[in-house]
Amino acid sequence: MSTGRDGAGAPEDVFSVEPWTVTEPTLRLDMLARSESVFALSNGHVGVRGNLDEGEPHALPGTYLNSVHEKRPLPYAEAGYGYPESGQTVVDVVNGKIVRLLVDDEPFDIRYGTLHRHVRVLDLRAGTLRREAEWTSPADKTVRLTTTRLVSLTHRSILAIAYDVEPVGAPARVVVQSELVANEDLPSVTGDPRVAAVLAAPFEAVEHEVRGTWASLLHRTRTSGIGVACAMDHLVEAPDGVRVDIDAQAQPDWARVTFTAALEPGQRLRIVKLVSYGWSSLRSTPALRDQVAAALTGAMHTGWAGLLSDQRGALDEFWAGADVEVEGDPALQQAVRFALFGVFQAAVRAEQRPIPAKGLTGNGYDGHTFWDTETFVLPVLVHTWPHAAVDALRWRHETLPKARERARQLGLDGAAFPWRTITGEECSGYWPAGTAAFHINADIADAVIRYHDAVRDDEFDDAEGLELLVETARLWASLGHLGRDGAFHVDGVTGPDEYSAVSDDNIYTLLMAQRNLRAAAIAASRRPVPAARFGVDAVEIAGWRQRADAVVLPFDEALGVHEQSRGFTGHALWDFEASCAEHPLLLHHAYFDLYRKQVSKQADLVLAMQLRGDAFTPAQKAANFAYYEAVTVRDSSLSACTQAVLAAEVGCLDLAYDYACEAAFMDLHDLENNTRDGLHIASLAGAWTALVAGFGGMRDHDGVLIFAPRLPSGLTRLKFLIRHRGLCLRVDTDGVRATYTLIDDGHTLEILHHGTSVVLRSSEPQTLDVPPPAVPAPQVRQPAGRAPRRRR
Amino acid sequence: MSTGRDGAGAPEDVFSVEPWTVTEPTLRLDMLARSESVFALSNGHVGVRGNLDEGEPHALPGTYLNSVHEKRPLPYAEAGYGYPESGQTVVDVVNGKIVRLLVDDEPFDIRYGTLHRHVRVLDLRAGTLRREAEWTSPADKTVRLTTTRLVSLTHRSILAIAYDVEPVGAPARVVVQSELVANEDLPSVTGDPRVAAVLAAPFEAVEHEVRGTWASLLHRTRTSGIGVACAMDHLVEAPDGVRVDIDAQAQPDWARVTFTAALEPGQRLRIVKLVSYGWSSLRSTPALRDQVAAALTGAMHTGWAGLLSDQRGALDEFWAGADVEVEGDPALQQAVRFALFGVFQAAVRAEQRPIPAKGLTGNGYDGHTFWDTETFVLPVLVHTWPHAAVDALRWRHETLPKARERARQLGLDGAAFPWRTITGEECSGYWPAGTAAFHINADIADAVIRYHDAVRDDEFDDAEGLELLVETARLWASLGHLGRDGAFHVDGVTGPDEYSAVSDDNIYTLLMAQRNLRAAAIAASRRPVPAARFGVDAVEIAGWRQRADAVVLPFDEALGVHEQSRGFTGHALWDFEASCAEHPLLLHHAYFDLYRKQVSKQADLVLAMQLRGDAFTPAQKAANFAYYEAVTVRDSSLSACTQAVLAAEVGCLDLAYDYACEAAFMDLHDLENNTRDGLHIASLAGAWTALVAGFGGMRDHDGVLIFAPRLPSGLTRLKFLIRHRGLCLRVDTDGVRATYTLIDDGHTLEILHHGTSVVLRSSEPQTLDVPPPAVPAPQVRQPAGRAPRRRR
Repeated sequence: MSTGRDGAGAPEDVFSVEPWTVTEPTLRLDMLARSESVFALSNGHVGVRGNLDEGEPHALPGTYLNSVHEKRPLPYAEAGYGYPESGQTVVDVVNGKIVRLLVDDEPFDIRYGTLHRHVRVLDLRAGTLRREAEWTSPADKTVRLTTTRLVSLTHRSILAIAYDVEPVGAPARVVVQSELVANEDLPSVTGDPRVAAVLAAPFEAVEHEVRGTWASLLHRTRTSGIGVACAMDHLVEAPDGVRVDIDAQAQPDWARVTFTAALEPGQRLRIVKLVSYGWSSLRSTPALRDQVAAALTGAMHTGWAGLLSDQRGALDEFWAGADVEVEGDPALQQAVRFALFGVFQAAVRAEQRPIPAKGLTGNGYDGHTFWDTETFVLPVLVHTWPHAAVDALRWRHETLPKARERARQLGLDGAAFPWRTITGEECSGYWPAGTAAFHINADIADAVIRYHDAVRDDEFDDAEGLELLVETARLWASLGHLGRDGAFHVDGVTGPDEYSAVSDDNIYTLLMAQRNLRAAAIAASRRPVPAARFGVDAVEIAGWRQRADAVVLPFDEALGVHEQSRGFTGHALWDFEASCAEHPLLLHHAYFDLYRKQVSKQADLVLAMQLRGDAFTPAQKAANFAYYEAVTVRDSSLSACTQAVLAAEVGCLDLAYDYACEAAFMDLHDLENNTRDGLHIASLAGAWTALVAGFGGMRDHDGVLIFAPRLPSGLTRLKFLIRHRGLCLRVDTDGVRATYTLIDDGHTLEILHHGTSVVLRSSEPQTLDVPPPAVPAPQVRQPAGRAPRRRR
Repeated sequence: MSTGRDGAGAPEDVFSVEPWTVTEPTLRLDMLARSESVFALSNGHVGVRGNLDEGEPHALPGTYLNSVHEKRPLPYAEAGYGYPESGQTVVDVVNGKIVRLLVDDEPFDIRYGTLHRHVRVLDLRAGTLRREAEWTSPADKTVRLTTTRLVSLTHRSILAIAYDVEPVGAPARVVVQSELVANEDLPSVTGDPRVAAVLAAPFEAVEHEVRGTWASLLHRTRTSGIGVACAMDHLVEAPDGVRVDIDAQAQPDWARVTFTAALEPGQRLRIVKLVSYGWSSLRSTPALRDQVAAALTGAMHTGWAGLLSDQRGALDEFWAGADVEVEGDPALQQAVRFALFGVFQAAVRAEQRPIPAKGLTGNGYDGHTFWDTETFVLPVLVHTWPHAAVDALRWRHETLPKARERARQLGLDGAAFPWRTITGEECSGYWPAGTAAFHINADIADAVIRYHDAVRDDEFDDAEGLELLVETARLWASLGHLGRDGAFHVDGVTGPDEYSAVSDDNIYTLLMAQRNLRAAAIAASRRPVPAARFGVDAVEIAGWRQRADAVVLPFDEALGVHEQSRGFTGHALWDFEASCAEHPLLLHHAYFDLYRKQVSKQADLVLAMQLRGDAFTPAQKAANFAYYEAVTVRDSSLSACTQAVLAAEVGCLDLAYDYACEAAFMDLHDLENNTRDGLHIASLAGAWTALVAGFGGMRDHDGVLIFAPRLPSGLTRLKFLIRHRGLCLRVDTDGVRATYTLIDDGHTLEILHHGTSVVLRSSEPQTLDVPPPAVPAPQVRQPAGRAPRRRR
């Protein structure tokens, strides 16, 4: 059998297509970097990449704890006022995954000997990564290995591994070494020697301890001063009569517990390794030491079987209100479940810490959190696992003091949230695609509004939610200005399209700011007592309303389309033919040239038409979509899902299907050749959005759920569950009819089906016809070479 | 007497007001950094700061050789395509100025003992810096010291110092140590430790030699690999009967020749130190060694008296065609001569090397050359010392291969000259105020056109001049585009106003590009043979004409003024009141905020109205000037002179006078508190421009010299000489009448006086009345706190 060393097979052949699992049937060493990301396990608090148990070979070893980072200098060739001086980078913490095996003193290493079988299975319902291998050592001893790994969804600081080994055909002496390793050697990710020096060994050892099968390490990051404790303990199961010798050692940067046994063929040794992590920038060494010991004791008490069953229970609860079923495309079915699993893993136990762009699956983007969270991830969580959504918003709220300080530094009122960050400080070293992307503030407000509409959580809405709306509205009021023309302008900002930075009256930004200002005005008016606590009075509210009402969208009368930003449609067209082999364009062309021409990195006006669909007529949407489709190169993974939604809305259903698949297969098929750096959590979320908002036509402008299902020719059925105001709703369509079922008892819910109001009552499904499209689908084309892969 | 240690006295009191000299009557230790720049001597090839002979105290020791630089890394927090990776920084070379004195073993140091008298005089006709001091040592020995320093205008690699010392009142043993010192300790100019490391000791020693009174050092820069040789020799004059002992030593980084004599009161020891410099990145060590020896031998042959008289001869020739006389303001008289002297020193022997923004007077701006040269300095040289102008243009031409390569990298045709450079590579680390400032290419073309109009140098015009016009025209043809509206647009560029970067259709850029395209078309049509060598054909010429003819200037109909760039007048007004104590604004406000509001760092549209005055009506000029005057904060020294010219043109003569004085006193009064970094060569040039183009009304659009003299109330007379097509013209006005005199024999010249054609014949002065203004002067005001200092 082949281990794929020669890179054989198409990228989409790496994993088998199954409804509830992702299986790598044979080890692909050439795809190790990708499989480490795809097989990463996380609960949003602790994350481990899918590295092999024995540690190597690896592409990138990775163990991440949410927000554990090191500071690094941000250098500038020419400094400027307000440039951040220090950045933050996620660091690889103590690796607790390592379990090495010696078979008669021969290390188990799949690069040597003969690997007869090697299967890895990510189980989306069990929440485990299972590995089965059968291997003959160069000295001709054969063993069968079965390991199961989980990052607990119910014990948030626990990583657990069941490691089973048995000899095949002949007896063998096996030595199992369970380790903790700090300051692992990593491939360099930077060309800057100063930064590399900071990140090479970010931890200094504080203490280490060992006792029986228990060992622990305690470290502190050198500059950011975060204490990180890691402890492990073990459960041993051996056949009757088999003696297991146990030995343990620890040093400042590693600890090891060794189990040795002589096994007959068919005799299985099981070592269950439980690892707990604890970290804090505030708590003392004794407090951290106790914290990991307590967590570990709790997990030992639950035991391996208990952890497994809790894990499945947590996922059963998730899927019961979140599953999406598609018929006609089994690969897409698998992909959307993998996507939801990835989003859930990134968020479920983040608990007032950020949800980074890569979750905890890799060190891409320095582990930073961007607008991705609020704009792409939270809209999914709001309707699938709302508790995680509000936790993410609470994290943003906790960073408000830093955002206020940043606004003051920039000469603005309210709060200016960072473009990229771990702890709330601005970490962007390029302001035209950082500070100038002020839309992140409206994106945060938008997520607050969506959470309010979908959950009605008065406790949050009165406090953190209101304050976030107020402070972001204040930002817009000071950032924009009422011009001589009477319109409210926001000049010199960067919208989602990073190939058109620092422009005036970006429509996305204007419309999201308008929504922000209006929502703040409404919320503050409805909640006068808490609003007064934040210093809001009637004059300020009136000012927000005045600005929101004065928003005017730039429109090109000659072309009959909106301008992404003022002047955009007057710019020269990018020469797409000449650059069709040079994507992403930013690696081959200077910003100055990208910025001044008609070329969009990603959906910008098109995203505005999704999130602020109420601001456009159907005919405008069709014309705008066709126009911008021809200049959008999708050099960002944050584009396909949005293009899918709007393509579906304007009637280009097969194109929408292509885009939905691009979003869904982003990581399983490694479409951007960078899944090695971690999963694209926002694109995974976008797979859900492409199906539910695209083919399901779901929108939730202003609190009323809207559906407008239509299916592309490739799909025969779409069925999805969503959570809304504490209820669970099932939508089921074959493209001709749609059935809406309110699952919970004793409630009613009003929705719109293709514009028609429907009142749902519990367990009384209603079936309605899908009407023919009101407006014909536009003719659309993509830039040369940038059409999505056809899924037909 | 006070040595000014406490900073007493107003900044304008440092130097005495005299017509042809700049005298510091008493040593101002608190102003040492400024006087080192003001007293810098240079010929454009070699430059030395006005450091004290004995080396210390000093603010910044500085000896500069044109283009001798070291490379340094340009770091980026976030890298981007096309960003330069390496910068260039001028380095302080071997210090040959140092002559130390011991009086009976007590070092002469003005910080100890008693300084009875200390006068320094920069003589603008002699081209020397003279110093007279009388000092009593702590051991109570008194000496009188007279030194005269020059950087030869006729022996371009020679620095010479006559050092005279005599005891006063009592005999003394004097030891004079004449030194060469390499890798001097300098105050750190960067916060970046990597850059500091590169620049701390940029030279590695290659060889050193000593022989009699002769010594030399040869070094090479570590990274840029430039060999620098320095040799010194001495002439000794002592009274009869006085024995002078001579001793010499050398080490890799220093050499010293020591002269010892016992002198009676009134006996004077004179040491004449001659220093020669040679440098090259190509020539071998022996070649450099020979080069400095030869230069030194030549200077020794000329002798001190010969050097002095050659120096005066060179300056006499300069002043004979360049002097500007003003009556009514002696300080301005002095300042404009100091300014012309500074421009002449920066350029006269640069000889196909660049003219940096600071000349060779300091290390400000890393010793880089910007658009300053072509836009501010060359228009002065073209009419005062045209040979230096064409040499500077030849330097640009020599960098064409690098500019072509840069254009290719940016995806453009023709040549893209660097925003800042020493050797032709782009050294700007911030593209919005670097690469995007494409106007530098039109500025270079403009200087070629001005040189052509003023000199008619067929040899240059057919070769380098034409090629520069062609390659810059090609840049514009590829950078701009013909829009759907039929107009030629140049989007996403930065004009002179660096507070409004990356904007569309900047008028200055459009008009200068138009001039560039037209000039290239005319020149290529007139010179078809050389043009064909550069690949120009009729189709290309027609394309340039088509684009030039399609330029349309953005105009705000509601306000009745042009828009500096498209959309500018629709932006929010900057809050000038709030920021009136925060200048320059860029140190207190983020670029994003400056860029999106109505605030101009410097003349931009106003400069366009000077250089392309033919594109505006008088009424437009008045309206535009008034509008932009209210939003221009003059945070650049490149603004006041232009504002002076336009203020004069629209009739605000007293305001023009204030601005002219600001330009003229920039360094003598240290108006921007940074004269320490070197003189503002462009602002010095601007002093000439403010008087000649402002109150003289001189323009040279399209080759016909135009004058329109008018004087402000503070001046009673303005008289200036200019060179034009090999002739010398004198303009003399008292504000009521103007007299034009063609000094050279046997020629005629047609000029315009306030729109009236006048044909001048040699030595037949013509006197004409100054007519009343055609258009009333507009009411103007400046931003809060930014009115120029009133000169009344």
